Amino acid sequence: MSSTLATTNIKPFIDEDFLLETPVACELYHDFAKSQPIIDYHNHLPPNDIAEDTKFGNITNVWLDGDHYKWRAMRTLGINEDLITGAAPAREKFRAWAKTVPYTMRNPLFHWTHLELRRYFGITRLLKPDSADEIYDETNAQLQQPAHSARGLLQQQNVELVCTTDDPTDDLRYHQQMAQSEAGLRMLPAFRPDKAILIEKATFNDYIQTLEKVADEKIDTLDNLMSVLEKRIQYFHENGCRLADHGLECVDPVEWTLAEARQAFKDKRAGKTLSPEACAKYRTAILTELGKLYHQQGWVWQLHLGALRNNSSRMLKQLGPDTGFDSMGDWKQAQGLSRLFDTLDRNDQLPKTILYNLNPADNEILATMAGNFNGGNVRGKMQYGSGWWFLDQKDGMEKQMNALSNLGLLSCFIGMLTDSRSFLSFPRHEYFRRTLCNLIGKDVHNGELPNDTKWLGKIVADICYHNAKNYFNF
Amino acid sequence: MSSTLATTNIKPFIDEDFLLETPVACELYHDFAKSQPIIDYHNHLPPNDIAEDTKFGNITNVWLDGDHYKWRAMRTLGINEDLITGAAPAREKFRAWAKTVPYTMRNPLFHWTHLELRRYFGITRLLKPDSADEIYDETNAQLQQPAHSARGLLQQQNVELVCTTDDPTDDLRYHQQMAQSEAGLRMLPAFRPDKAILIEKATFNDYIQTLEKVADEKIDTLDNLMSVLEKRIQYFHENGCRLADHGLECVDPVEWTLAEARQAFKDKRAGKTLSPEACAKYRTAILTELGKLYHQQGWVWQLHLGALRNNSSRMLKQLGPDTGFDSMGDWKQAQGLSRLFDTLDRNDQLPKTILYNLNPADNEILATMAGNFNGGNVRGKMQYGSGWWFLDQKDGMEKQMNALSNLGLLSCFIGMLTDSRSFLSFPRHEYFRRTLCNLIGKDVHNGELPNDTKWLGKIVADICYHNAKNYFNF
Amino acid sequence: MSSTLATTNIKPFIDEDFLLETPVACELYHDFAKSQPIIDYHNHLPPNDIAEDTKFGNITNVWLDGDHYKWRAMRTLGINEDLITGAAPAREKFRAWAKTVPYTMRNPLFHWTHLELRRYFGITRLLKPDSADEIYDETNAQLQQPAHSARGLLQQQNVELVCTTDDPTDDLRYHQQMAQSEAGLRMLPAFRPDKAILIEKATFNDYIQTLEKVADEKIDTLDNLMSVLEKRIQYFHENGCRLADHGLECVDPVEWTLAEARQAFKDKRAGKTLSPEACAKYRTAILTELGKLYHQQGWVWQLHLGALRNNSSRMLKQLGPDTGFDSMGDWKQAQGLSRLFDTLDRNDQLPKTILYNLNPADNEILATMAGNFNGGNVRGKMQYGSGWWFLDQKDGMEKQMNALSNLGLLSCFIGMLTDSRSFLSFPRHEYFRRTLCNLIGKDVHNGELPNDTKWLGKIVADICYHNAKNYFNF
Repeated sequence: MSSTLATTNIKPFIDEDFLLETPVACELYHDFAKSQPIIDYHNHLPPNDIAEDTKFGNITNVWLDGDHYKWRAMRTLGINEDLITGAAPAREKFRAWAKTVPYTMRNPLFHWTHLELRRYFGITRLLKPDSADEIYDETNAQLQQPAHSARGLLQQQNVELVCTTDDPTDDLRYHQQMAQSEAGLRMLPAFRPDKAILIEKATFNDYIQTLEKVADEKIDTLDNLMSVLEKRIQYFHENGCRLADHGLECVDPVEWTLAEARQAFKDKRAGKTLSPEACAKYRTAILTELGKLYHQQGWVWQLHLGALRNNSSRMLKQLGPDTGFDSMGDWKQAQGLSRLFDTLDRNDQLPKTILYNLNPADNEILATMAGNFNGGNVRGKMQYGSGWWFLDQKDGMEKQMNALSNLGLLSCFIGMLTDSRSFLSFPRHEYFRRTLCNLIGKDVHNGELPNDTKWLGKIVADICYHNAKNYFNF
Repeated sequence: MSSTLATTNIKPFIDEDFLLETPVACELYHDFAKSQPIIDYHNHLPPNDIAEDTKFGNITNVWLDGDHYKWRAMRTLGINEDLITGAAPAREKFRAWAKTVPYTMRNPLFHWTHLELRRYFGITRLLKPDSADEIYDETNAQLQQPAHSARGLLQQQNVELVCTTDDPTDDLRYHQQMAQSEAGLRMLPAFRPDKAILIEKATFNDYIQTLEKVADEKIDTLDNLMSVLEKRIQYFHENGCRLADHGLECVDPVEWTLAEARQAFKDKRAGKTLSPEACAKYRTAILTELGKLYHQQGWVWQLHLGALRNNSSRMLKQLGPDTGFDSMGDWKQAQGLSRLFDTLDRNDQLPKTILYNLNPADNEILATMAGNFNGGNVRGKMQYGSGWWFLDQKDGMEKQMNALSNLGLLSCFIGMLTDSRSFLSFPRHEYFRRTLCNLIGKDVHNGELPNDTKWLGKIVADICYHNAKNYFNF
Repeated sequence: MSSTLATTNIKPFIDEDFLLETPVACELYHDFAKSQPIIDYHNHLPPNDIAEDTKFGNITNVWLDGDHYKWRAMRTLGINEDLITGAAPAREKFRAWAKTVPYTMRNPLFHWTHLELRRYFGITRLLKPDSADEIYDETNAQLQQPAHSARGLLQQQNVELVCTTDDPTDDLRYHQQMAQSEAGLRMLPAFRPDKAILIEKATFNDYIQTLEKVADEKIDTLDNLMSVLEKRIQYFHENGCRLADHGLECVDPVEWTLAEARQAFKDKRAGKTLSPEACAKYRTAILTELGKLYHQQGWVWQLHLGALRNNSSRMLKQLGPDTGFDSMGDWKQAQGLSRLFDTLDRNDQLPKTILYNLNPADNEILATMAGNFNGGNVRGKMQYGSGWWFLDQKDGMEKQMNALSNLGLLSCFIGMLTDSRSFLSFPRHEYFRRTLCNLIGKDVHNGELPNDTKWLGKIVADICYHNAKNYFNF
């Protein structure tokens, strides 16, 4: 045996030093990262479940029913759709997932699954066909306990604050209900006006009608629309909202005028078909105008760039969007972003910004783009955001943090978010923190950083918690 | 000496644990991977050499004469073209290659070269100027032995089945000859109709004429062409073909109609110059129609995407194509593929698919695109294929397997192929297997996978052999 | 503690084996790399400072005043612009930088900073607020010594030759002055005619007028311009110039004729607005014509591809270009380069070429593109150049060297350059050499290269020094 790692022992799977390869990494994680509260500033949790502190019927409901990551893996293995999104009984679906899990080795699902079983349920057995029924019964029993209600699950994980993702038409009743509760957990809304921006969608006009009803105003012109959105932003702000979110393929590097955007809106409302260029002008115009409004309010905006959605029209028709048929696109990102930010920055109207990319080939594009618009005495104003969606795994996190480290300041990073629809996803913060500590620990071990764990521990704690708290003024 | 690896010993070059960095990796390779037979489902071996069990005159013939990887390296070092593709004597050419080899350190050629000398000839000396003549003589002597005929070389390496790459006009006589032999080795054809697709080529009309002769039919319309291709597909199927192959820069994300494609074909046949857009419409149309035919037959299709070929027109004129003047392109890949697959999937006409990219910046694009169209109870229906061409080396393989692991299921992967023109390239399967076992072994060593070598060994064996066997129904 | 690296000790920060992880790496660095002289064939040093052997007033002048890398980091941390580029006193600016440094952990600035303090000033303390004043005073005192004049700083670092970057209108008086001195250090010019190429710029016509004055000729046509540039090339050649340099977003893959380029030039000179396509045709035409002239002179040309410059128009107005507001672009690179090189290669007019990319997603595109045009008995004719700008750090260097190793011949690589405006940047050669030795050392340690340090040491020395010396005929 001549292997270079032969002198060290095999680590047990997910032990307390999981992902931590050096003593320094262990110290950073256990002494500085682990105990930080969680600010999950971007997720897709259902506000009603939190406000009403829902109890979940069974593990299939809370773990499988909404999780298109798991569905994709099951389809890849050749599992019948009936056992994935169909009418099969909850126990059967759980068994199908248990059958899949061993085949997800090296996929983040394998780690998520076993971390979640450990952290929420104290189950250390591996999930596989012969443990499926036992684990099904045990988790279901625990889900009946108060510690496993919607809020119980969050509080177990030391979650201090969550920001949900909400349409401008939302009445935010659940956020108001939470604001009045004494839950020891804050839930704030985030403003996601995609449906007012993606003018090329067939559903655009219907959406504008819904918005008219909510606002109780006619929206015949782009100016009407902006006025309504401004009121909704004000309403969201009053309900604690401090950040917006946009899902975009890319920001088109088109030249546009407000007159052109007004015309495009008018044409669309009149039922005309818009050219792709007219749509792009409209989208960029409204995005710019929204940026100004966010800046006025002191909000942060997030841009989620590069998802190619609903690739299978057959399955879109069958199951709707967000069901596991999305992938990465390869649009050009640099020039459009530059133009958008420059337009706003020219008159000091550029809000704090978080950029997320889906295609890792764009990592360095976004990391350096962020650096172009820092300044104005704002610490970490332009953020290159945490690994998103497909990139929310060890390799993706490491690449994001390495790009950020090499091309910007990791020390100013606001860190992790779950972006999840599930109450069981919060160990991803732990996963992120371990990965962060491991990167820094390796650098110290190799003599690439000074062995000053007090200073580095402070930076770790900042990234895990304090930077986000200060950045959002939470 | 403060180096972090100082406590371990230096490994000998290419020892039995080559590329295996942990005890688990060694166990996985030696106990589960090494003995698996080889299914080389995509290569460019000459069928006549296999059918007739050719003996090779000398090592230069079999190792250098067709190998444009080596030629590129020699040109980079400043070797005279006469010693590369020119009229220089075989021994001189071999010496020129031996002079080059030490300068290929860190290039995969350095590993391929010494692995091949070891595995086929038992030669462990390094190839360099002062070993050149001895190795030349020794390999030539061995090449006169039956164990070193075309089939002998394959059987030494435990090759069970090879799929060659064949034009639709091919009569497949050598495949028929092999089918009737008792060689203990199967050779199947693969259908590669590039010349019927790349309508922009000056040689397109000549090719259609050749096809007319083979089919003994007039091909005046696109419908004629499709009918002829359908018959050729049937003929290939009867001769054991189970997969097609396409070389494309990208799939253009154009809108097209069959009427437009028919017109483009008609115009081309009439000698008119087509616009780039008309060519793209034609290409996408015929690709879609071929996809339906493959699906009907239960075939797999392979798409090889992203090669920018024949960059030097001077050398193309001098030496022809495939002589070392190709590189990676940077076309956008996502939307065109999505549209092609969706069109077929809509009516359940999408065949099993293997996607290969040449530009590693597209790794994650293709790995996630594959995940969009899995389903229908087919295990691993959409494959993200093994590192291709320039990426067929340790780094490329690791990136392909890591992307696949993170974004899909490595466990369903059908593994390695040589894509080679050479009978001496089969240790690449060994190289791949070692790399695979090393990745998994490291994860176990680091506590990122459970130490269950029985389960992981089964997955390794699946990737090396069983997955391909089942996927192709071989 | 179960961590896999637990059995080795923590390395001190920047010890003598900094970045060297194996005994072989240490041997290669200390015995073969360290003592090689430096040929810095591309930088932006001010020729007058070298010719006149300038003494620098204080560390802020020489270290901070021109360094937009540092400025970007300071802006990210929220430092006031007054302390960055404003009117604040030198000591205050230094303190602001000292405050920033600890927050640059994991950014290359952290390594550059402490390497430079060590190598030029022998200071091993970390720079931070409480060491700022001491270090400020100590460095300033040393800067008054002869060993710390412009040339002193270069000679401390064993610099043998530098190539500056000069406009065609430059009279090269400082280069002539140096040629006549007995400095033991050579300074050669490099020809950078960007201003004659970027016809889309508002300043183009002004520049042509400057060129008219320098040449004392009317430049009414493209042919006039080419004639003047040819004379300037001749003048540069007589003053020792052996290489040109071009900064380009990309080479546009347009079809062009000289007639079109002539018309574009005429229109621009007449004050007309050119279409983007006309600009692209002009740029590609003049680039091609310049390539022929360089080839005639036996020069090397460098193409720096992919910078998206001056993203913030507000800050451009305030501070001018090159002040920290540039980032990476995502233009397509492959086809335009292929066409340019093929056009020249067709008639054997392609000069030796060095390709640099800013976006690391293009690494493999450029590394393989270079391989297409090697040949003609020139060793390493087409170079894939060292990690540039944002990529000039450990991770970027490793990726560049790994891409080059896998896709070309690392052994023929001409190695590192600073590309810097600062006299204190030369430890980047040390950094590069350590990284190079570490990569090779790891391969030996893992049994992926033979343990032949004599051979590998020769290759290391070639990459550090001899390859560049031979390539440029210096």
